[in-house]
Amino acid sequence: MTTPPVGIIMGSQSDWATMREAADLLDELGIAYEARIVSAHRTPDRLWEYGKTAVDKGLQVIIAGAGGAAHLPGMMASKTRVPVIGVPVQTKALSGVDSLYSILQMPRGFPVATMAIGAPGAANAALMAAGILALQDSALATRLDEWRSALSASIPEVPTDD
Amino acid sequence: MTTPPVGIIMGSQSDWATMREAADLLDELGIAYEARIVSAHRTPDRLWEYGKTAVDKGLQVIIAGAGGAAHLPGMMASKTRVPVIGVPVQTKALSGVDSLYSILQMPRGFPVATMAIGAPGAANAALMAAGILALQDSALATRLDEWRSALSASIPEVPTDD
Amino acid sequence: MTTPPVGIIMGSQSDWATMREAADLLDELGIAYEARIVSAHRTPDRLWEYGKTAVDKGLQVIIAGAGGAAHLPGMMASKTRVPVIGVPVQTKALSGVDSLYSILQMPRGFPVATMAIGAPGAANAALMAAGILALQDSALATRLDEWRSALSASIPEVPTDD
Amino acid sequence: MTTPPVGIIMGSQSDWATMREAADLLDELGIAYEARIVSAHRTPDRLWEYGKTAVDKGLQVIIAGAGGAAHLPGMMASKTRVPVIGVPVQTKALSGVDSLYSILQMPRGFPVATMAIGAPGAANAALMAAGILALQDSALATRLDEWRSALSASIPEVPTDD
Amino acid sequence: MTTPPVGIIMGSQSDWATMREAADLLDELGIAYEARIVSAHRTPDRLWEYGKTAVDKGLQVIIAGAGGAAHLPGMMASKTRVPVIGVPVQTKALSGVDSLYSILQMPRGFPVATMAIGAPGAANAALMAAGILALQDSALATRLDEWRSALSASIPEVPTDD
Amino acid sequence: MTTPPVGIIMGSQSDWATMREAADLLDELGIAYEARIVSAHRTPDRLWEYGKTAVDKGLQVIIAGAGGAAHLPGMMASKTRVPVIGVPVQTKALSGVDSLYSILQMPRGFPVATMAIGAPGAANAALMAAGILALQDSALATRLDEWRSALSASIPEVPTDD
Amino acid sequence: MTTPPVGIIMGSQSDWATMREAADLLDELGIAYEARIVSAHRTPDRLWEYGKTAVDKGLQVIIAGAGGAAHLPGMMASKTRVPVIGVPVQTKALSGVDSLYSILQMPRGFPVATMAIGAPGAANAALMAAGILALQDSALATRLDEWRSALSASIPEVPTDD
Amino acid sequence: MTTPPVGIIMGSQSDWATMREAADLLDELGIAYEARIVSAHRTPDRLWEYGKTAVDKGLQVIIAGAGGAAHLPGMMASKTRVPVIGVPVQTKALSGVDSLYSILQMPRGFPVATMAIGAPGAANAALMAAGILALQDSALATRLDEWRSALSASIPEVPTDD
Repeated sequence: MTTPPVGIIMGSQSDWATMREAADLLDELGIAYEARIVSAHRTPDRLWEYGKTAVDKGLQVIIAGAGGAAHLPGMMASKTRVPVIGVPVQTKALSGVDSLYSILQMPRGFPVATMAIGAPGAANAALMAAGILALQDSALATRLDEWRSALSASIPEVPTDD
Repeated sequence: MTTPPVGIIMGSQSDWATMREAADLLDELGIAYEARIVSAHRTPDRLWEYGKTAVDKGLQVIIAGAGGAAHLPGMMASKTRVPVIGVPVQTKALSGVDSLYSILQMPRGFPVATMAIGAPGAANAALMAAGILALQDSALATRLDEWRSALSASIPEVPTDD
Repeated sequence: MTTPPVGIIMGSQSDWATMREAADLLDELGIAYEARIVSAHRTPDRLWEYGKTAVDKGLQVIIAGAGGAAHLPGMMASKTRVPVIGVPVQTKALSGVDSLYSILQMPRGFPVATMAIGAPGAANAALMAAGILALQDSALATRLDEWRSALSASIPEVPTDD
Repeated sequence: MTTPPVGIIMGSQSDWATMREAADLLDELGIAYEARIVSAHRTPDRLWEYGKTAVDKGLQVIIAGAGGAAHLPGMMASKTRVPVIGVPVQTKALSGVDSLYSILQMPRGFPVATMAIGAPGAANAALMAAGILALQDSALATRLDEWRSALSASIPEVPTDD
Repeated sequence: MTTPPVGIIMGSQSDWATMREAADLLDELGIAYEARIVSAHRTPDRLWEYGKTAVDKGLQVIIAGAGGAAHLPGMMASKTRVPVIGVPVQTKALSGVDSLYSILQMPRGFPVATMAIGAPGAANAALMAAGILALQDSALATRLDEWRSALSASIPEVPTDD
Repeated sequence: MTTPPVGIIMGSQSDWATMREAADLLDELGIAYEARIVSAHRTPDRLWEYGKTAVDKGLQVIIAGAGGAAHLPGMMASKTRVPVIGVPVQTKALSGVDSLYSILQMPRGFPVATMAIGAPGAANAALMAAGILALQDSALATRLDEWRSALSASIPEVPTDD
Repeated sequence: MTTPPVGIIMGSQSDWATMREAADLLDELGIAYEARIVSAHRTPDRLWEYGKTAVDKGLQVIIAGAGGAAHLPGMMASKTRVPVIGVPVQTKALSGVDSLYSILQMPRGFPVATMAIGAPGAANAALMAAGILALQDSALATRLDEWRSALSASIPEVPTDD
Repeated sequence: MTTPPVGIIMGSQSDWATMREAADLLDELGIAYEARIVSAHRTPDRLWEYGKTAVDKGLQVIIAGAGGAAHLPGMMASKTRVPVIGVPVQTKALSGVDSLYSILQMPRGFPVATMAIGAPGAANAALMAAGILALQDSALATRLDEWRSALSASIPEVPTDD
């Protein structure tokens, strides 16, 4: 069985409610992916293994969602040169600003491509992955262009009362 | 003359102090780039033109730095499917949190791969670009792996008093 | 058909829940307007067109509401000298502080007259538009004075239990 | 002696360092103005008088800068229907976020057109005033268009090392 | 009819839900008060009048609650030397941080005794008023001591499940 | 030797740079005071003693300045019914927002009259103390009125270049 | 009757909803504790007594939860050398950032081991206490290792739709 | 050679300026320690090794300082049950709030005992370590009591002008 080009990883089952947005959009764009729970703190060895094998397995992009002291995206970026896209999951007390700072403020050497907080960020992670993969896949590039055009075309000119 | 794979764009001359970190790191990794001032507000038509021609010119990654109401990265992402990496430039009153929110909080449809605020973010933008380009360039992949190994090897075990 | 003096534009249909406050208050003051969805990211060409034709069409004031990475008001201000009033729409994770900073922190050259976050800001955008138009319309000036007087007169002296 | 169309008011002498940016830009655009210190707290009666006579004196726009618990712009907006543009002056402990919230978050009924924090906001207040006055003054409209074009034309294409 | 020693003023009817906590606690301590709606922006002349007559009427403490760009407490402090206690009312978008900064950050010359955000702050405004009045009223001092002792005595040693 | 009516207490010697503003203004208004270092954490028993004896010694107002986890004002308010005015001292990492929240957010029962962050807040603490003492001291009331009038009279009408 | 090694103290009955998480986890790990309400402001003498007798009673760790101007953990740390673990209880207006800053920003000399805001922080306080006690109790060390292993083992590899 | 009871680890050489405060205070208290640079991102395998061997080497407390996306303390807490004390190093753009949230907001299961931002937090980490070790070392308990007494005794009663 071949590895899909995109890995969606997340810190816990509860992050799936957010990260499913990424999965759904990858489905929509016809991009294969795997979804895994990889907790930086509870399953650090799983994180290590995932990171160390990412290149050899053929992963092209890793989408990593986490909340609070969100160490998963950054630790994954330290373990592999495969581009890591980070999604800050919204949190109860700090609204995801804790997740954001933990993912965004990476030191020189280990970038994480940080997306908006919450569901819009998860969807955009899929689109960023698509943009990266489209550099080598002209059919996907066409599908992505069409998705973007359709989005634009769907916007009505005048707002409507419901 | 051929277009290099990476375009570094910024909102103003003053952003160059920050964005030069990206240029220097691209130089170090042997990745060609062009650097341009493209102000979303002062030269919107330049932004339009840059975005519309990005794919055809062969740009693979756009690194966009801006400060304050930092509209350049997001507007560029709306004009082209080429991946856009955003660098929030630090600002005087709000320390770059204004730049960050303007770049990060993109709506569903138009992702910007946001980096840390300021110089570390600019350097990381270059490394993220390298990671993306390395997916299709095994020589660059090797150089990037070596750069990362060298960084790790440079860390002493014991802190030293100066 | 003549263009009304005020254009209310917004980034998406969902912003209409907020921006309707502006429309309702313009109705109350007898000021004609048009309401349009102009998404900076999804319909950038619509934004361009709207901005480029604003002066010639006779628009006197543009009220622009947007949320998150709210680029619409500022990009409109870069395309036309018609005064732009910005309304930061409240957002889920960051309560509209993201919208606020994206609208407010415009660089020297392109002001956006920023209003309070959310519905009160939308209503005030209409009143600010009225104040601007009243400079050339003494009948409107009178209506605005009366509206203000009526508001003041409506305040009871003593709070009442419900 | 006739009243100029623009009044620049500020809470204290120390705000002049910021508000001079507005004055300089009005000078550049050939717009007459008066500059006055009107402290909401130390000279409330001066505020009252200024607000009550604004319409009759012929003021068209009031630019009000203040810092901290910045009550001047909002109190002026409560005393006159002349459009008030507010400039949040940067402060020592809270970087002007205190000034910003005190100016921005006006209740329904009394808008203040809030500009960016500090000097860029003061300059933009002048440009917003110009945009408002240009609605009735085609010569000023032309000068403002030219100012904007010159700003755009001044942006080099390529950043330069200093 | 004599003026009571404490005036509770608030910016709008909706603030009464918060400020009633102050009234209830004054009732509990046997301190007479009047409650008035005095909007800084909608009824500025009422504010002026209230401030100017406060000393002569015999007011000893003014408790002022307001939300958003909360100018009432500070403007009252500029009109009278009677001690003003400010209560920041919680707000929708900014949770009362806007109210807090508008009330707290008064310039040198015009203090407002700022309380906690929301209902606990309103209750504490009454207790602060009691502490001030108790300096001249030994019976009240005794009642206040007793109220404090009763509060302390009411705290169980061990938490209980409900 | 008699106790003066005002006690200025502070958490450490370094707070004196800020709190001296309070002392200087009390001097200016002719109000006697004592200044003491009372650290909530390092000298808790001193705090206890100061609080327990405050009423009997004849203290009328306590001004308490502290920074960081600023527990001094609130703990003093729990030990005595003498009105406590709190001054949040500006801090290095968090600009005094830590001091502010620690002083301001007191629970129902124990108010602290919180002033602005830093030196302006210390000066205003003295003026608030004066306003409280003036309720029982008509000579001081007159001096305070004169101080306020002089402040107002000192404001020039027109800003001056330096 | 012997004192258990852990004391859980909290500022009010309402904090128990949060602090019960600590109690439950201590139960799970087989660590004895006592739970007490010790309000810094309402029962300061109880705080004093608890702190002064902590060492002699044989307390090994104190877990202290509080909200708002949360002085309990820091004041306890000033009264005893027994390690104090602080839990910032989430609050209504400021989401527990007020609690956090009041607990965290202790001056040099009196550390409080601060946990995450709210329930996760309370649970972690118990685990931190366990880690400290395990240094002298190898049976507990084994139980803690097992608890951690069980947590890790409970994480599924693949997220599931509900 | 025996392992000392305390390990001070930090993310980079530059953190040593802050963490030296911990080392100096451990020296003062006569507690042996080792200081190591262990970068979560640049030397993740070093982190793994340090964590996995901590118990067996006999480490009793780990003090971990880091800045920005500060993953070191939390990742160490996931690798060992030895108590981890985290020190948020102050940062340029976000003043250490990024470091704080990355260290503090750990999920249930893996506590980090978080100290104040910057140097005071580093010193307090040493004191917290001392408090933990003192539970099993009565001589150290006595030294810690004396250090605390000396600190208290060093506080003058009256502030002095310099």
